[in-house]
Amino acid sequence: MTAYQDLEKRFKRLSDIRGAEGVLHWDSATMMPPGGAEARGEQLATLSVIAHQAITDPALEALLDEAEGRAGNLDGWQSANLREMRRAWRHANAVGADLVEALTREGTACEMAWRGARADDDFAALAPKLASLLGLVREKAAAKAAVFGCSAYDALLDAYDPETSSADIDTIFDDVRAFLPGLIAEVIERQAQAPPPLPLDGAITEEAQRALGETMMVQVGFDTNFGRLDVSHHPFTVGVPDDIRITTRYKDGDFTESLMAVLHETGHALYERGLPKDWRGQPVGEARGMTLHESQSLLMEMQASRSDAFLTFAAPVIRKAFGGTGPAWSEDNLRRIYRKVEPGLIRVEADEVTYPAHILLRYDLERAMLADDLQVADLPGAWAEGVKKWLGLDVPDDRDGCMQDIHWYGGDFGYFPTYTLGALAAAQLFAAATGDGPAILSAIGKGDFAPLLAWLRASVHGWGSKLSTQEILIRATGEPLGTAAFTRHIRARYLS
Amino acid sequence: MTAYQDLEKRFKRLSDIRGAEGVLHWDSATMMPPGGAEARGEQLATLSVIAHQAITDPALEALLDEAEGRAGNLDGWQSANLREMRRAWRHANAVGADLVEALTREGTACEMAWRGARADDDFAALAPKLASLLGLVREKAAAKAAVFGCSAYDALLDAYDPETSSADIDTIFDDVRAFLPGLIAEVIERQAQAPPPLPLDGAITEEAQRALGETMMVQVGFDTNFGRLDVSHHPFTVGVPDDIRITTRYKDGDFTESLMAVLHETGHALYERGLPKDWRGQPVGEARGMTLHESQSLLMEMQASRSDAFLTFAAPVIRKAFGGTGPAWSEDNLRRIYRKVEPGLIRVEADEVTYPAHILLRYDLERAMLADDLQVADLPGAWAEGVKKWLGLDVPDDRDGCMQDIHWYGGDFGYFPTYTLGALAAAQLFAAATGDGPAILSAIGKGDFAPLLAWLRASVHGWGSKLSTQEILIRATGEPLGTAAFTRHIRARYLS
Repeated sequence: MTAYQDLEKRFKRLSDIRGAEGVLHWDSATMMPPGGAEARGEQLATLSVIAHQAITDPALEALLDEAEGRAGNLDGWQSANLREMRRAWRHANAVGADLVEALTREGTACEMAWRGARADDDFAALAPKLASLLGLVREKAAAKAAVFGCSAYDALLDAYDPETSSADIDTIFDDVRAFLPGLIAEVIERQAQAPPPLPLDGAITEEAQRALGETMMVQVGFDTNFGRLDVSHHPFTVGVPDDIRITTRYKDGDFTESLMAVLHETGHALYERGLPKDWRGQPVGEARGMTLHESQSLLMEMQASRSDAFLTFAAPVIRKAFGGTGPAWSEDNLRRIYRKVEPGLIRVEADEVTYPAHILLRYDLERAMLADDLQVADLPGAWAEGVKKWLGLDVPDDRDGCMQDIHWYGGDFGYFPTYTLGALAAAQLFAAATGDGPAILSAIGKGDFAPLLAWLRASVHGWGSKLSTQEILIRATGEPLGTAAFTRHIRARYLS
Repeated sequence: MTAYQDLEKRFKRLSDIRGAEGVLHWDSATMMPPGGAEARGEQLATLSVIAHQAITDPALEALLDEAEGRAGNLDGWQSANLREMRRAWRHANAVGADLVEALTREGTACEMAWRGARADDDFAALAPKLASLLGLVREKAAAKAAVFGCSAYDALLDAYDPETSSADIDTIFDDVRAFLPGLIAEVIERQAQAPPPLPLDGAITEEAQRALGETMMVQVGFDTNFGRLDVSHHPFTVGVPDDIRITTRYKDGDFTESLMAVLHETGHALYERGLPKDWRGQPVGEARGMTLHESQSLLMEMQASRSDAFLTFAAPVIRKAFGGTGPAWSEDNLRRIYRKVEPGLIRVEADEVTYPAHILLRYDLERAMLADDLQVADLPGAWAEGVKKWLGLDVPDDRDGCMQDIHWYGGDFGYFPTYTLGALAAAQLFAAATGDGPAILSAIGKGDFAPLLAWLRASVHGWGSKLSTQEILIRATGEPLGTAAFTRHIRARYLS
């Protein structure tokens, strides 16, 4: 067995452990009785210790050195796989076991405290825990920055979106900052000229919503032999390519959120399904990063599923699912419901036009916190200021203010920008796909997503982690990531 | 950290891995989409390699030696825990890693082949795989026998029911062999004097069966904050004490099987729930073995839930669940349905009177196969002969003959006797419980299982693996395991 082959075996084992962790996480969020939480936490902690030991095993480092020394014997995919192994190794080994353990412990404690503090709208009770967790995150960022030779924020970012720097983001976000306020104002002004959408009436039961979600999941190309749809508090996707679990949540009397969550998560699931089969269980066979992952969910949810073509197909299906009749259930009214733009306090409820405002706010604040330019105690004030600036709204409480998202309270800093980078990438990819083949959009109009899926598999999914996010985008769209396709898309959909 | 403390830490980790495996198994049988089977198999194989490496780590052996050398410092529970650690170590280390791997591989292959061969009723196609697997089982048994200083069969038995030997079993089973044919004949003759039970009518939907099952599970004392009920092809119980998953299966139009399966599995679940809290995750905190485990499920299913007292309580609940009216739904008719005795071909469908006949047959055949006195090719003939002898029936095919059970085809030899040992123990424990406190039976008549459960927790569950099966039975009932309580029970229920 060569060093490289030995590494493949070790990383396959790590992938199996992560696959098992995925099932345990899915189960906790969908099936587990409440009393199982403590035992489950211990099982997950043990698996994570085992995985950490495996990747920090000195023998693994020696194998990496040896394999890199003989890299001439490897083909393109193998070389890329070895590079990704080294990247995973570098992330795991940059941080000491004590710090990893402290981060897990304080992250869990802070997240638990967040649940209660959010319910009580009591940021003061949460602040010390966040401050302590932030201190550990800063330590981690500094340790990685020293090894990687980059800034602390970029070191965190690299774990979510490899090879994307805050300089890249700033170039793009400065552009967004410049056009967003005007664009939002224009769209709102245009929509104010028409009466608001009619509210939906009739019996929109959870059962009918689930049936519609399952139908649509299959309609857009997901084979349910390889995954399933369940219910959780927040929608998510987890799993391995042949067994992907997605979730949604049902609001009695309103299907719009549950259906779009299913389409969003199915976008994630289709990316996982389309990853290169020959590289299952290897680092190069994994999804490239969160920007591309989010691009796939948003391409499905925002680009394809809110397109005129799809809504023409979907409107009668939706009417049939709920026995809806009358003008509220017309294609035109459904389109207007799905395209209503309105600044709001809550990120996860935001439309695609105002969404980037939520991200700019969070990006600025998390960078400031990481750089120690913003103290945790001052976060609510800074939040209110940012919401006023970007969304024109007053923040009535911290519950729907700086405590609305779980990310920071679980220790995730550097994740937020990938939502908007993903939205931009989605617009760019969808424009390229429908530009490459006009058949794609007309097929979607008939509920046939196969041509779109074929394009995505060839252009995005099939690369796994062989290329960088930018390389994949350049090959697929002819350009690096930018804002042009997104603004064209918003103007075409909302202002033409 | 002392050697003993280090061992506790290592065994807790092993317990976490097994807990994770339990969730993965449960998920495969209840939730997993079919396409996930291969990836799941790999995840489970990896976890089992990791667990095997942990328990065969030479450092662990050194710790066992050291802790045993200083056993004077340990209290009673700790000493028992150390003893159980050594037992687990001995089982794992008696067999080489190559043989363990071969057993897993051939066991999985043979079990897969069994599914197809059973459907096709093609024993000839399956025989070579069973022969090859049996060869490996024999190797394992011989290796363990050499280390433990016992017979090959006893070495296998010890993994399912520690410290029970085939000599113990023979003493008991010889007794069963002597009384069983006469007892079966007597009961059948008695039942022939009355007309057969009336068949149940009405809409016995799966939904109503599930609702009844969930009600009854709670009624007999299971707290659903710590477990849940789902559907699988064969009913089973798996999990950790604070998160126990049980399953049943629903037959449209007939609730009797699904309800008794729920009560049976709830008996298993209550045992796990009642294990000593202070010893969670340690070997001494586990259930003692399969005989006691089966005694708990059968005590619930056969002793308590088919008792006159319980049926008086349950009959109106059952009628209400299905809207049943008329004589078929009377308490008397329900009792006669649940107590119908009739020799049949299928073990899992057998009543409590004929069940031991199925076990005698399997016990004799598996011992002969292990001793090489019976060749796999001759199994169908020997099976037919045994069924004729013990049940008086002709075997029409191998599907409902020697291919009906999964055990041998997955490599499980030495397991079958625990079913009947469990039935005998159930009778003995229930007699002692209801003899100790007459309040127990009258509470059951009101649907209140709390007094019975309190007795079981104190007498059986709470011991974990501190005492042997025999020690637990002697303390709880005043006698070692025997047949007297069982025959008294059968005579009282069926012949008085």
